[in-house]
Amino acid sequence: MGMSSALLTDHYELTMLQAALAGGAAHRRSVFEVFARHLPGGRRYGVVAGTGRVLDALAGFRFGDAELAYLRESRVVNDETLDFLASYRFSGDVHGYREGECYFPGSPIMVVEGTFAEAGLLETVILSILNHDSAIASAASRMVGAAGSRPIMEFGSRRTHEAAAVASARAAYLAGFSSTSNLMAGSVYGVPTAGTAAHAFTLLHDSEYDAFQAQIDSLGPDTTLLIDTYDVAKAVRTAVELAGPALGAVRIDSGDLAVAAHEVRQMLDSLGATDTRIVVTSDLDEYSIAALAAAPVDGYGVGTSVVTGSGVPTAAMVYKLVAREDADGVLQPVAKRSVGKPSRGGRKNAFRALEDGTAVVELITTSPDAPAPEGARPLLHALVRGGEIVGREPLDAARERHRASVAELPVPARQLSHGDPVIPTVFS
Amino acid sequence: MGMSSALLTDHYELTMLQAALAGGAAHRRSVFEVFARHLPGGRRYGVVAGTGRVLDALAGFRFGDAELAYLRESRVVNDETLDFLASYRFSGDVHGYREGECYFPGSPIMVVEGTFAEAGLLETVILSILNHDSAIASAASRMVGAAGSRPIMEFGSRRTHEAAAVASARAAYLAGFSSTSNLMAGSVYGVPTAGTAAHAFTLLHDSEYDAFQAQIDSLGPDTTLLIDTYDVAKAVRTAVELAGPALGAVRIDSGDLAVAAHEVRQMLDSLGATDTRIVVTSDLDEYSIAALAAAPVDGYGVGTSVVTGSGVPTAAMVYKLVAREDADGVLQPVAKRSVGKPSRGGRKNAFRALEDGTAVVELITTSPDAPAPEGARPLLHALVRGGEIVGREPLDAARERHRASVAELPVPARQLSHGDPVIPTVFS
Repeated sequence: MGMSSALLTDHYELTMLQAALAGGAAHRRSVFEVFARHLPGGRRYGVVAGTGRVLDALAGFRFGDAELAYLRESRVVNDETLDFLASYRFSGDVHGYREGECYFPGSPIMVVEGTFAEAGLLETVILSILNHDSAIASAASRMVGAAGSRPIMEFGSRRTHEAAAVASARAAYLAGFSSTSNLMAGSVYGVPTAGTAAHAFTLLHDSEYDAFQAQIDSLGPDTTLLIDTYDVAKAVRTAVELAGPALGAVRIDSGDLAVAAHEVRQMLDSLGATDTRIVVTSDLDEYSIAALAAAPVDGYGVGTSVVTGSGVPTAAMVYKLVAREDADGVLQPVAKRSVGKPSRGGRKNAFRALEDGTAVVELITTSPDAPAPEGARPLLHALVRGGEIVGREPLDAARERHRASVAELPVPARQLSHGDPVIPTVFS
Repeated sequence: MGMSSALLTDHYELTMLQAALAGGAAHRRSVFEVFARHLPGGRRYGVVAGTGRVLDALAGFRFGDAELAYLRESRVVNDETLDFLASYRFSGDVHGYREGECYFPGSPIMVVEGTFAEAGLLETVILSILNHDSAIASAASRMVGAAGSRPIMEFGSRRTHEAAAVASARAAYLAGFSSTSNLMAGSVYGVPTAGTAAHAFTLLHDSEYDAFQAQIDSLGPDTTLLIDTYDVAKAVRTAVELAGPALGAVRIDSGDLAVAAHEVRQMLDSLGATDTRIVVTSDLDEYSIAALAAAPVDGYGVGTSVVTGSGVPTAAMVYKLVAREDADGVLQPVAKRSVGKPSRGGRKNAFRALEDGTAVVELITTSPDAPAPEGARPLLHALVRGGEIVGREPLDAARERHRASVAELPVPARQLSHGDPVIPTVFS
């Protein structure tokens, strides 16, 4: 971070730029649109995430000496193109759904306007960020729904690329997770961090007793002790013996979690540790969280499934040219006609139509300057104006927006079963 | 890259460190082992990837002023622990499978030895890297096998986190992909970069004819033209009319690729463009690549499926304490007994037993100093000695090693169907 993001770009973006510069079309005003043809995995809604990171990447999209030297030496593009890149600055406009907003098939999640040369180059990095972060947030939001009022901690860093882990922690938090184990996410994005205890810590000591004693001595009785390294029942007795009823929490990481949670709750209560919380982990996903709703569980730790999008690690968003100037300088809608991959030409606008506060339709219009239909909430907001970033906001604003956006959806939005999007997308 | 990797770490690694420092066990000599209990998705072999990146992360694992300030302000750990972290240097040893080597369930892919304090902290970042890169390489290797002698280009950057994209390009290349679209991977790791043409480029122009003309004028007739924006047959005629028989390649990105490839081959041949290659893209994975074996295809571009591990985005590797000093300074094997998550205590060694040059058994011993059994290849090599990195190597060495390692496996290794690992793991 601080590094240039300019080489997070596909080779062909630069060779296409070279050809467009040479041919003269590079400076045609162009409109690119990010959208998804479908929601991942038969889900009921998607979650826009990564917008703030896109703005960071845009600010860092500069071809400096190192980037230009690489491109020159590897002969990716010619000198004319290198000269253009050396002074590259995005000077156009970006509108988009605000981060945390729900989206549906065809929602124009981000609209990037500028010359072809300026706007086309941003395709790869914008899609990388939105596809990753939205996939994570879309999965995380379902887990949050399944967990009800119980908090979920994000523990998946070790199961995904080390930088994707940081973005995943951010995306999960904005979707409603309570915290992350990832310290970089704490440092860079201010996500609250949390942790429990490790099997290695227990094994390091000559006995579980010694390990618990050392942990409680240093971290206080309000810590979370890990109780499944050897024998769960014995560990619970040792834990309460050492920490007393002030013991913060215990974690169970193996076995049948529902059965174990009931047993451990009973043991804790019988030992007087009625306020000690039970945290469960072990390959949890939205389905297993939902299955634990009736178990005496006070919090979840979720790892692999959230950082891998619970079966859908990427959000299938694309970045398509939908309009560009013609030879006369008039903006014309354009769309490819490839088999099975339809796209709709034209600069769009988008509204969420509501009835009695409940969302009913995702309304997409191709008359960008039409006013919002009555009772409809406009979804596209200015993020960049004339190259200047105007859409930054605190991560907690996106988190709160997501909470409100899901709350506004019809009740079936929270169904975990596969099905259709919970509201239809209507183009007009 | 250049940045500290120290905060790519789970919160509890530091609180466990604090408790171990206070309790006195932190300086016990410890052995941690990276292994996977199973291969992803019923595959026949896994591919070790990320080793070189682990060494980079290890070199950058330093708690500088910024990292310490964050930890102090957020009160993750106490002052004693911050003092320890300020002077943290890993001074232990790391042995591991060399990058590109195949692995099997239980293979001790990496063995990290040092004090608990020094070695335990590395868990998160080591697993993040190995789990991600090995998942990508394991999927990529199957695609390379399915493609036979035809080259595969990695085009998936836009479908994964922007930094994971760079690591994915690296992992796919070491598994045998010919190139990547990711320019950062070219710049940082020297992976050859390649690209074709974009629908947006065609749509930018007033006609496909104009677009092809501009591309050929600037990039030469040896370029790759994208022929499915409007009508494939018309595009092929236009392409050959403009570029002549010297046209490098055409790309097909939609429709039934086998049918389209046959039709396009016939058209190209009938127009005299018999040397013009056909590149296909469009949600390809190892299965669809295999299904195209009989089609006249000269190369593949693979995106989503390779960067998401073709259904298995993480390799399920864990980092377990397998031995540590007891109170008398004697190294003792340790293992947890959690239900359904067995691990084997003790420092391991590993060999691949061969018969007539073909691998027959993955042999894991717990007598680390025993000599290699006859006809067996030792798999653990020194990567770090006394804190000094000794295991760096060029990426092409890992690529060549992978080629040789797969070639050594029994023929069924290349089967795409689900099944058992192609050789058994034997513990002795």
